[in-house]
Amino acid sequence: MRGAEVFSDPASVALIGASDNPDKVGGRPLFYLRSLGYRGVIYPINPVRDTVQGLPAYPSVADLPETPDVAVIAVAGRGAVDAVAACAARGVKGCVVITSGFAETRDPNGAAMQQEMVRTARNAGMRLVGPNAQGLANFGTGTVLTFSTMIIEEPPQDGPVALVSQSGGMSAIPYGLLRGRGVGVRYFHGTGNDSDVSVAELITATVADPDIKVVCTYLEGVADPPAFERAARAALERGVPIVALVGGRSADGARAAASHTGSLASESVVVDAFLERLGVRRVDTMTELVEAVDLYLTGASVTGERLAIVSNSGGSCVLASDQAGAHALPMAVWDAGTEQAVRAALPAFASAPNPVDITGALLTDSGLVRRVLSCVRADSGADAFLVSLPVSGRGYDVPEFASAVADFAARVDRPVAVTTPQPRAAHEYRKHGLAVYADEAAGIRALAGYIRHADVRRRAIGRGVLDLRRPGVGPGMVRNEADSLAVLDGRADVVRHVLVDGPAAAAQAFTDLDAARVVVKGCTTTVTHKSDFGLVELGCASVEQVAAAAERVLDAMRANGFEVDGVLVEEMLAGAFEVMVGGHRDGKLGAVVLVGAGGKYVEAVPDFAMLLPPFDRADALAAIGSLRMAPLLAGVRGEAPVDAGPWADLAVAVGELLIAPESVVESLDANPVLLVRDGARTRAVVADAVVVERRVAVGAGSGSGPSESAAAR
Amino acid sequence: MRGAEVFSDPASVALIGASDNPDKVGGRPLFYLRSLGYRGVIYPINPVRDTVQGLPAYPSVADLPETPDVAVIAVAGRGAVDAVAACAARGVKGCVVITSGFAETRDPNGAAMQQEMVRTARNAGMRLVGPNAQGLANFGTGTVLTFSTMIIEEPPQDGPVALVSQSGGMSAIPYGLLRGRGVGVRYFHGTGNDSDVSVAELITATVADPDIKVVCTYLEGVADPPAFERAARAALERGVPIVALVGGRSADGARAAASHTGSLASESVVVDAFLERLGVRRVDTMTELVEAVDLYLTGASVTGERLAIVSNSGGSCVLASDQAGAHALPMAVWDAGTEQAVRAALPAFASAPNPVDITGALLTDSGLVRRVLSCVRADSGADAFLVSLPVSGRGYDVPEFASAVADFAARVDRPVAVTTPQPRAAHEYRKHGLAVYADEAAGIRALAGYIRHADVRRRAIGRGVLDLRRPGVGPGMVRNEADSLAVLDGRADVVRHVLVDGPAAAAQAFTDLDAARVVVKGCTTTVTHKSDFGLVELGCASVEQVAAAAERVLDAMRANGFEVDGVLVEEMLAGAFEVMVGGHRDGKLGAVVLVGAGGKYVEAVPDFAMLLPPFDRADALAAIGSLRMAPLLAGVRGEAPVDAGPWADLAVAVGELLIAPESVVESLDANPVLLVRDGARTRAVVADAVVVERRVAVGAGSGSGPSESAAAR
Repeated sequence: MRGAEVFSDPASVALIGASDNPDKVGGRPLFYLRSLGYRGVIYPINPVRDTVQGLPAYPSVADLPETPDVAVIAVAGRGAVDAVAACAARGVKGCVVITSGFAETRDPNGAAMQQEMVRTARNAGMRLVGPNAQGLANFGTGTVLTFSTMIIEEPPQDGPVALVSQSGGMSAIPYGLLRGRGVGVRYFHGTGNDSDVSVAELITATVADPDIKVVCTYLEGVADPPAFERAARAALERGVPIVALVGGRSADGARAAASHTGSLASESVVVDAFLERLGVRRVDTMTELVEAVDLYLTGASVTGERLAIVSNSGGSCVLASDQAGAHALPMAVWDAGTEQAVRAALPAFASAPNPVDITGALLTDSGLVRRVLSCVRADSGADAFLVSLPVSGRGYDVPEFASAVADFAARVDRPVAVTTPQPRAAHEYRKHGLAVYADEAAGIRALAGYIRHADVRRRAIGRGVLDLRRPGVGPGMVRNEADSLAVLDGRADVVRHVLVDGPAAAAQAFTDLDAARVVVKGCTTTVTHKSDFGLVELGCASVEQVAAAAERVLDAMRANGFEVDGVLVEEMLAGAFEVMVGGHRDGKLGAVVLVGAGGKYVEAVPDFAMLLPPFDRADALAAIGSLRMAPLLAGVRGEAPVDAGPWADLAVAVGELLIAPESVVESLDANPVLLVRDGARTRAVVADAVVVERRVAVGAGSGSGPSESAAAR
Repeated sequence: MRGAEVFSDPASVALIGASDNPDKVGGRPLFYLRSLGYRGVIYPINPVRDTVQGLPAYPSVADLPETPDVAVIAVAGRGAVDAVAACAARGVKGCVVITSGFAETRDPNGAAMQQEMVRTARNAGMRLVGPNAQGLANFGTGTVLTFSTMIIEEPPQDGPVALVSQSGGMSAIPYGLLRGRGVGVRYFHGTGNDSDVSVAELITATVADPDIKVVCTYLEGVADPPAFERAARAALERGVPIVALVGGRSADGARAAASHTGSLASESVVVDAFLERLGVRRVDTMTELVEAVDLYLTGASVTGERLAIVSNSGGSCVLASDQAGAHALPMAVWDAGTEQAVRAALPAFASAPNPVDITGALLTDSGLVRRVLSCVRADSGADAFLVSLPVSGRGYDVPEFASAVADFAARVDRPVAVTTPQPRAAHEYRKHGLAVYADEAAGIRALAGYIRHADVRRRAIGRGVLDLRRPGVGPGMVRNEADSLAVLDGRADVVRHVLVDGPAAAAQAFTDLDAARVVVKGCTTTVTHKSDFGLVELGCASVEQVAAAAERVLDAMRANGFEVDGVLVEEMLAGAFEVMVGGHRDGKLGAVVLVGAGGKYVEAVPDFAMLLPPFDRADALAAIGSLRMAPLLAGVRGEAPVDAGPWADLAVAVGELLIAPESVVESLDANPVLLVRDGARTRAVVADAVVVERRVAVGAGSGSGPSESAAAR
């Protein structure tokens, strides 16, 4: 199959539905091709005109003197379908269909016409962008196959940025904003319905361009996960960062699922984990997307997170320190020599420790910015710099400040952000290619994002390929607790338990387990929230108590009309903390694993982090470390610390279980998992579990049915 | 005492240290007064020149032909102190001391000189701004007593905004940004060291101006809480909103305190509660401060939180919906008639339900914005509107869109925010006085802030005056648990308990309490975290167990060398939830009360909200409703709901206890408080408490000492 690169530098372009009016949708691509440096041959197609915008026109594709490499189709409705067919017949390599009114509407006829176009194109080996596309643009070659009006508003300039989005608006807006900041953009793609060529495929094509330094994209979910994974991996290999503005969080509905974790793992949470896993940075606003670009273009090295601040405003120092705290960037501590040098460079009433406050002394000595920056350049304690010079106006030599910061940034090779609110002052700094922000919050958000992204990308490079082959298959077969624990047996530390058929056997099990206290539970496949139905009796400490509890849970199961698979007698452990590990196969993005606080209220007061298998112990420990409950593990109120390692190992095991080729596990909730202090060691004991398995054809499964299995160890 | 209004419209101004060079600090105020419309008499004081900037100069204040109303002092060091003295001697009403080098430095001599200035001024009844002040400006009268260079960068225009800040930079930045957006500013004050006239006093003065519609201020903590409360109350009475950018969060250190809640209540958290209590809106960034202003200037009525979105970009609809979710603004649901009308106004492929997507149809029909807005204007379900028209360029009739939105906003009298990223398009909307933002996130943040602030102000109006008379006095006298529970007795539902002296009496107490299970605790004033030292034995269910537990806790107290006040035997209740109520007297801002999740980990995994007494049950319920644990109270996993009312009542009682005139309570932690279901009722039972009392002189206290009290009920 031809690649999406057929649209990048075609020798000739046909414009089907070309208008003589350059302000019309059908006239604009022609106007852009002619005015923005396209060097190939242009063929306007218009059956009722001899010339279009001064070029000779042709009545149809069939009438052209040669086969054009690509065609832009701007004729309405059925005409677009016919034009695709004509291009296919003529051997055109790719079409950009601008026309709308297809699968994006509620009209089934529109969807059918789109299918017809795709079929025609595929049969001919022709690639199709759209329909309903704003179009593609490569300002490096002048190949502008788009009708976006933003190109007139902000004239293009070739540069190292690629914008790839389905939404026309969400490619035009960042294009306009980046150009307004003076940033050059090469690729400006709005792909529309993605019926054939997808956003992911175009990202793969743009990262293959050695001049591209950053890709910005707008996503609403991930349309084609394997293609997106390929694009992200190509970007990682080429060292091109991808920043994604992701819309659609509020569309998350509660998902009906047998597992707790299924309902926690809303689509946007899974998408977040998917993107991070692939080294893609996610941002929440258009402003953040656009502001992220500057630092990537500097290419500054990331050595750590310690932030240094140099300002001439005490208030700005305070606000910047606050923002450093909000983004968890530690403040750099100057080397002794640095602090001494800064002190010597500044008047006595200025502040030399980080944050450095040059004070209003800058008004009388414009050389202070340069001198202070030269003092801190070689400091060993600073990984990133915020230079905040928020005041401007007569008396402030902003061109000198800008030159000083630019010289510093060029030599220090660390991320440097400048904050200055006035557009005129910002322009001075931008002229030097510096990353400039309106306030401390924006500057530090951009620095933190850049620094963290370097780490996310570094970790993404070594990771295994995601398991996107077998998406979730919907409702499966719920295993009872005994069977579920059996699935984990050998892979995890499972609570000691015996499955019995009645009170007498339960009492015997208590004796056999030789535990101080046990839990007696009803074993059934009918419900997974057992305690809601009186099926869990805690703290039974004698044969009599155990027998009575077994009687009660059996009665409760029968009274509720539940399927009775027996009674479980389990050792009751005093765990330091109740945690959980859950996993399931997502409908679209493959297997996901959750680690989090456990117990009864995991959904009502959620505290969890998500991992996409395969992942390793370090990944799982990092996820655990991000939990709100994480500080407890270090030991508070005089408690001994708890080792999260066994919990992390359990998460890894659940991930492996989900993606094992032979596995039929659709979801698995281990909750609670008890973190038990055992001398200096910690155990992560699974005290309850629910496994849901894929429904398999008779004879094709991996073994026993739900009522055949019995776990007793 | 004269008010700060002496600086607002003086009949004459002396400039001490006036420079002939309008670019120098001493020359700029004179230049501004002459060029910005000041109509009074100007007296340059300069002992070495006959004229300054063309005006006749005088060698000293004493040589002036009349007493000037105010003086600006720009002479260095000791000269400034002498100038203050000369002004005081001559009967000047107020001085603005621009000179720096006083209390803001580490130099004790600077602090001493500042004290001298203040003393001189106070003795003469003269008001003093500064020293180290950028200065004051009233562009309504042309009284510009500041050296800020920002006035040259962005020429002034009188308007309804007041900027009042200690920091010169943090008043110049919002001034420049607001002027850059075309917003008129009347007051532009940078007050410096606030040695006499404070920010709070100037806020009081600006809100007395009937033309002022909003006050913006920058704070680092609250310097003079009673003065600030007066300013905030004056603003509430006049209906002028105050928006505060608050710096200094990262400076919070862990506070050494005997109480848990003391360590949770960092200064910035208390400041947040203080500001909200007084109806002041807090923002975190300069951008947010500046962007907040527009909506106040529209004065639109607030009727609720339901948001309607009208856009021509599907992507923008998605991002705006996401941001509405992020700010917890519910999406409006159109009346049936509205939806029908919108559908009729739009092409079939557009989307009529909220959010309305006009789509690219706007490119061919510029009247759609006006028509859609006229359809939704009378809708009963929408309280606020985001009109997002992010694309611009040839073909889009932005002036018509701006006129349509302005007409709509004028008639609908609800908050309307416009988002459009391109500066040129934004300018079109701003010309109509519309509130314009760069992206959906900024627009919805501003709308949500405006709407919520109306509610905060409404609730602030009726509230009692804060108790700022008696700040906390530092370490007090820790009461043991029995005495602490006795303090709450009669005000709250306290757990049934008996204080005894040994195992035999403990066993008897168990019998007397007639409880199924009891808790046995060591009673001591030495430690407050009893469980860390083995002083808490849960679940004792027989006289033998109780006696043995009493023996062990006594041994533990003795082994640790603790003061032994006895052994507490308490009924053990099965609470649905463990919560807490804590209160203490803050060092600066008076009494504070915390409600939150309780138990052992309140500091490690905090979940709390703060209230400043006096407050009522509704305030406390709102605070409880904001907790992360709040969803649990509604009943999850089939549990019955828990009534938060008794918990709220306990919080009110603790607040009243702290501010009662006769109270010696410095802090009180009730933790855990057990929310116990008692039939359909809920009880909030205090199961443990620690009270710290103020150390009082012998004979002046309210009663028994720590070892004299014994609580047994």
